[in-house]
Amino acid sequence: MLLKKIREEKPLIHHITNYVVANETANFTLALGALPVMSHAKPEVEQMVSLARALLLNIGTLDEYQVESMIIAGKKANELNIPIILDPVGVGATDYRTETARRILRELKVDIIRGNQGEISILAGYHAKVAGVEAVSASERMEDAVKELAFKHNCVVCATGKIDIVSDGKRLAKVFNGHPMLGTVTGTGCMASTINAIFASVSEDLFKASVEAQAAFGIIGELAQKKSGNNPGSFHQAIYDVAYNLTDEIVEKMKKVEIL
Amino acid sequence: MLLKKIREEKPLIHHITNYVVANETANFTLALGALPVMSHAKPEVEQMVSLARALLLNIGTLDEYQVESMIIAGKKANELNIPIILDPVGVGATDYRTETARRILRELKVDIIRGNQGEISILAGYHAKVAGVEAVSASERMEDAVKELAFKHNCVVCATGKIDIVSDGKRLAKVFNGHPMLGTVTGTGCMASTINAIFASVSEDLFKASVEAQAAFGIIGELAQKKSGNNPGSFHQAIYDVAYNLTDEIVEKMKKVEIL
Amino acid sequence: MLLKKIREEKPLIHHITNYVVANETANFTLALGALPVMSHAKPEVEQMVSLARALLLNIGTLDEYQVESMIIAGKKANELNIPIILDPVGVGATDYRTETARRILRELKVDIIRGNQGEISILAGYHAKVAGVEAVSASERMEDAVKELAFKHNCVVCATGKIDIVSDGKRLAKVFNGHPMLGTVTGTGCMASTINAIFASVSEDLFKASVEAQAAFGIIGELAQKKSGNNPGSFHQAIYDVAYNLTDEIVEKMKKVEIL
Repeated sequence: MLLKKIREEKPLIHHITNYVVANETANFTLALGALPVMSHAKPEVEQMVSLARALLLNIGTLDEYQVESMIIAGKKANELNIPIILDPVGVGATDYRTETARRILRELKVDIIRGNQGEISILAGYHAKVAGVEAVSASERMEDAVKELAFKHNCVVCATGKIDIVSDGKRLAKVFNGHPMLGTVTGTGCMASTINAIFASVSEDLFKASVEAQAAFGIIGELAQKKSGNNPGSFHQAIYDVAYNLTDEIVEKMKKVEIL
Repeated sequence: MLLKKIREEKPLIHHITNYVVANETANFTLALGALPVMSHAKPEVEQMVSLARALLLNIGTLDEYQVESMIIAGKKANELNIPIILDPVGVGATDYRTETARRILRELKVDIIRGNQGEISILAGYHAKVAGVEAVSASERMEDAVKELAFKHNCVVCATGKIDIVSDGKRLAKVFNGHPMLGTVTGTGCMASTINAIFASVSEDLFKASVEAQAAFGIIGELAQKKSGNNPGSFHQAIYDVAYNLTDEIVEKMKKVEIL
Repeated sequence: MLLKKIREEKPLIHHITNYVVANETANFTLALGALPVMSHAKPEVEQMVSLARALLLNIGTLDEYQVESMIIAGKKANELNIPIILDPVGVGATDYRTETARRILRELKVDIIRGNQGEISILAGYHAKVAGVEAVSASERMEDAVKELAFKHNCVVCATGKIDIVSDGKRLAKVFNGHPMLGTVTGTGCMASTINAIFASVSEDLFKASVEAQAAFGIIGELAQKKSGNNPGSFHQAIYDVAYNLTDEIVEKMKKVEIL
């Protein structure tokens, strides 16, 4: 019943994110009933995150200034027990991204890591290939990678792909919802991180929140494709239409989740 | 007859604005028949604003560099009598935003302040609550707040909400056009500031320009909702379709304005 | 048969570009079957461009930091023989843009310059008027301007407008495809540069690649307008739908190209 709760409580989600999808993730946040704020200025991120119920750190177009802002905001979030969601965009493509993600994991207590399977493989110390921001290949032992990374950082790890794998180091879930058209629009990975942040902001059990978020996101992809066919422009627009009209009842009925 | 004039003269509108809605406000400017330019580099903002017929300063994703650019561009705009429109996004959420807006109002002669009713309440010294960039509550004495702020800064203040309130410190107008779906898409406040800037760029009387702009914007929201229903993705797209095809005749016929 | 090749090889296109159209050009890249990455951080651009098959430098919202990144990435691209595509957005509007474009052309070996006819006129040393980022007027001797600029920099120059003109300093082509609705959406010039970069990334003959790219882009505009009418929001969305479903056969059948 998380969607109902989100629409009642309208949690503020502080994004420090990339300029490619800032608009899209803000609109996706609104469509789901939460409130987005995008803010990266060092003089204000501590105060801004104090108003928020989740902090999303997305390194898609990171630079030196932004990384410092993430650390500042993250430390305040930790102090206030505001959950941090990390999207390690492009980890494995450049050392700077890999090292920055590791630094964030070292200096902050991150609550959810949501990445594609290539990025998660790399962070877990497995082999994978990431071209730019796309996973070209991932570990063949993806479930181990997810579980180990979650255990190591005492957090939830959510590795998205054809089948999403979520673990908190002990429990492990697979989410079978989704549609290949999600790969034809930029920022759908970032939207997955956003919905993880939103669901986390109103939950106690972040493992369950992440599983629910991924099921809901996959269902949004399925329903959007039904509305728009194989047309990425129309599909992109339909994502917001579907998200806005999604209910907990639809999610309950359509979700395909296996908890191991 | 402002839309006709805009389409004939194609005024250039210099935006120093946030990266969340830069694309959206550029497209909205084009749809209305004006020309957008987004530019924030210190080495060029003076020269860029000299080519423009209005300067829009939007602090939605402000940082130290951008604030300096705004001051530099604004001083040049003042020197050349190019109208400045300020969108104090998120004022009240953080001290940095509030202080930056106050600094801009102190160091520059601003011609129109366009904000939501929470932001305007705060700037006018009244109590309000702003969560991130959304007004949660505004002053109960909104009309006084608008009028006083306009009087103090000798400018037009346009506070948007369910009913928009516009004043130049003497005259006061209420605009009843609009649709709740405008709240489901990010950047519609920023678009309201853009249409204020465009209308101001071809007007002598900025109070009238702001009232006309808000009526036109509200009508765009009403017509877009008729085209798209309660679907924020479709609604977002319809905004540009409607804006492009909007005429002065439609505005004249549909506008609901009360001038006090 | 370039589209088929693009979809098989999925070349990574590294964009250092403006925040107004970063999302749009990323989605356009995906719709055509290539992979986009947007990255501007000095610590990573050398490594990122090493993974890419083309580097697109777009100065639409340039600043001091970004210009340095472009030079760093460009030098690495030159070293590795990765083609560089320059989009000199707004050259002629401010000295900073003109000087930056000249600096890039001096310090880097650029392979394709894709600009509007005003920008190309200025770079070639002819008279033109550029308002913000729009060509208001261009040289009356456009063909000469294109050919001379291409000859001078030993590259391909692609000047887009009602009729696109492409030259490598010896050969010259005119492309008659396109639709006026392309002028109602921001970033369609940037998309033209993106498709030039994508086609170049899988080609030996960059002159032919640029001509094919412009024909394909013009056809996308024509087909998108057929789907959406004179509605810029719907037209914008249709661009991605059409690009995703475009085939080499459609391009072959519809292209209107004259090679002189």
